[in-house]
Amino acid sequence: MNEPTAARPQRAAVVGCGVIGAAWASRLLLNGVDVAVSDPSPDAEQILTEVLANAVAAYDDLGFATNAMGTYRMADSIADAVADAQFIQESVPERPDMKAAVLAEIEAAAPTDTIIGSSTSGIKPSTMQASMTNPERLVVGHPYNPVYLLPVVEVVGGEHTTPEIIESAQAIYTSIGMKAVHVRVEIDAFVGDRLLEAVWREALWLVNDGVATTQEIDDIMTHGFGLRWAQMGLFETYRVAGGAGGFRHFIEQFGPTLDWPWTKLMDTPDFTPELVDKIVEQSDQQSGMYSIRDLERTRDQNLVGILKVLEGNEWGAGTTIAAHRLNPPL
Amino acid sequence: MNEPTAARPQRAAVVGCGVIGAAWASRLLLNGVDVAVSDPSPDAEQILTEVLANAVAAYDDLGFATNAMGTYRMADSIADAVADAQFIQESVPERPDMKAAVLAEIEAAAPTDTIIGSSTSGIKPSTMQASMTNPERLVVGHPYNPVYLLPVVEVVGGEHTTPEIIESAQAIYTSIGMKAVHVRVEIDAFVGDRLLEAVWREALWLVNDGVATTQEIDDIMTHGFGLRWAQMGLFETYRVAGGAGGFRHFIEQFGPTLDWPWTKLMDTPDFTPELVDKIVEQSDQQSGMYSIRDLERTRDQNLVGILKVLEGNEWGAGTTIAAHRLNPPL
Repeated sequence: MNEPTAARPQRAAVVGCGVIGAAWASRLLLNGVDVAVSDPSPDAEQILTEVLANAVAAYDDLGFATNAMGTYRMADSIADAVADAQFIQESVPERPDMKAAVLAEIEAAAPTDTIIGSSTSGIKPSTMQASMTNPERLVVGHPYNPVYLLPVVEVVGGEHTTPEIIESAQAIYTSIGMKAVHVRVEIDAFVGDRLLEAVWREALWLVNDGVATTQEIDDIMTHGFGLRWAQMGLFETYRVAGGAGGFRHFIEQFGPTLDWPWTKLMDTPDFTPELVDKIVEQSDQQSGMYSIRDLERTRDQNLVGILKVLEGNEWGAGTTIAAHRLNPPL
Repeated sequence: MNEPTAARPQRAAVVGCGVIGAAWASRLLLNGVDVAVSDPSPDAEQILTEVLANAVAAYDDLGFATNAMGTYRMADSIADAVADAQFIQESVPERPDMKAAVLAEIEAAAPTDTIIGSSTSGIKPSTMQASMTNPERLVVGHPYNPVYLLPVVEVVGGEHTTPEIIESAQAIYTSIGMKAVHVRVEIDAFVGDRLLEAVWREALWLVNDGVATTQEIDDIMTHGFGLRWAQMGLFETYRVAGGAGGFRHFIEQFGPTLDWPWTKLMDTPDFTPELVDKIVEQSDQQSGMYSIRDLERTRDQNLVGILKVLEGNEWGAGTTIAAHRLNPPL
């Protein structure tokens, strides 16, 4: 982690090139890494070029050089993509059988010590390692979209992963501008998606029960606690709320309400056709006037602006951007 | 809602002047409203002046005039504070018995048609209305701290609240620069706190089980989905993730994982002394090098910067700030 430049691979493979894989490729390319991309879909290269165009615009706005990017090539097969890769990021669909088959193909062709990061958001690394020949070099490297802008990646090892591999994987991710948080206990969904899942479940109930529309829920988030969490997390925010009494005082005040019947703890709503229609209709009404491309551009411009503010204030995700300027991508 | 200036009261009362009440008073004062403050605590005025100093600095940074603020006075009693108030905001501790007693004191002295907004984050308005003489004028107006900067307020009526009162309350909150979201169904904890509660419960399990520290959880939030939610909510973010297939496609992909065993659904961890110690210790390690005042200043500077970015991009909470400039506070 002390010499991120040294850790930066020259050649990487991206296996699976949907939105997430394409954004991984974009982050690698914009950090000067050559990338071989493998995806059987005929749309893969178009997805890559569209996501890359967004990423280049965002890096321009952030003030990072974009004139000496790595080059990409669409490989003929997984074997072709990974044969001489120094780092491999896997982002195929979230089906354990597919992950296993793809990892087998990767291992059949890749150098035995090349680190493989998996983008899975829920499958445990030990599950994936069970069928591998060299399971010790697999880690979960779970990103958040847009991967080229949001710095965080959760690094999770399985029962076969060595501490050295965790460190090396963190160094690789750090070398391409990321905040690599090691999740030390292997649990389903890791950390971020457990929090997201809790919000998602509760939000579905609110829509299902007609308490609020998707627009109203989103307004409450973007005009309220979303603004908080761009710059201080749950615990730091509540520490401030507790005032000079610190976190103990906050817990004394707030703790008991946890037992109040505030959330629908027990189950999740069924995705009946009626609920799906309701959400789709409300989402169309909320955002249907924008194309997805427009929304992506707006999102990226907002994120770039917010990251610059935080960098100027030497705070939060801005410190990760600032550190990366000292170790520029190109 | 069309003429927010007309809706702006000239004289308001703030009953309960802790962190939330003081921030309400600050928002009102900075919008040119004279405020009578009632709180039996000898610390109340100091809290008010400290919060107000933060608020003035933030409004200066946002580019709003701060040279013709309303004036405040510390009232001798609730009766003294509310006697000629055109709007009353109640922010006393979250105990139903205390709320009832305070509302009785307010009603004994206030004009019968003055709207009373309650800052409660969990008590249903109908519960509070049960013992009132003129229950129709009570609404919940639930804000998010820092109240002078975060624009959202959830407006919730009880069984006695009339639609006209909801509209008038929304107009008053809009007139002081807020996004007043009407929560149409009366449920415990309304909308925002149900989402927050779900995250809080899950985060407590992660700390309790040693999966992550408070710092790691906060890092994952502030470097990941927190940046998302400052500018697009849960539903709009997922709409973008679904790509051209829209929200239906997103649900098809993501829906089934809701049934995976990802979250600790059934219960909440007990606040054993061990868990409290663990959280307090981790929070001290994470943020103990800053005073609460430092953290408040940093938070406000970050929020101001983020709000300006969003205003420049004509998006999200920035649109609420922009609308308020057309209808300036002073």
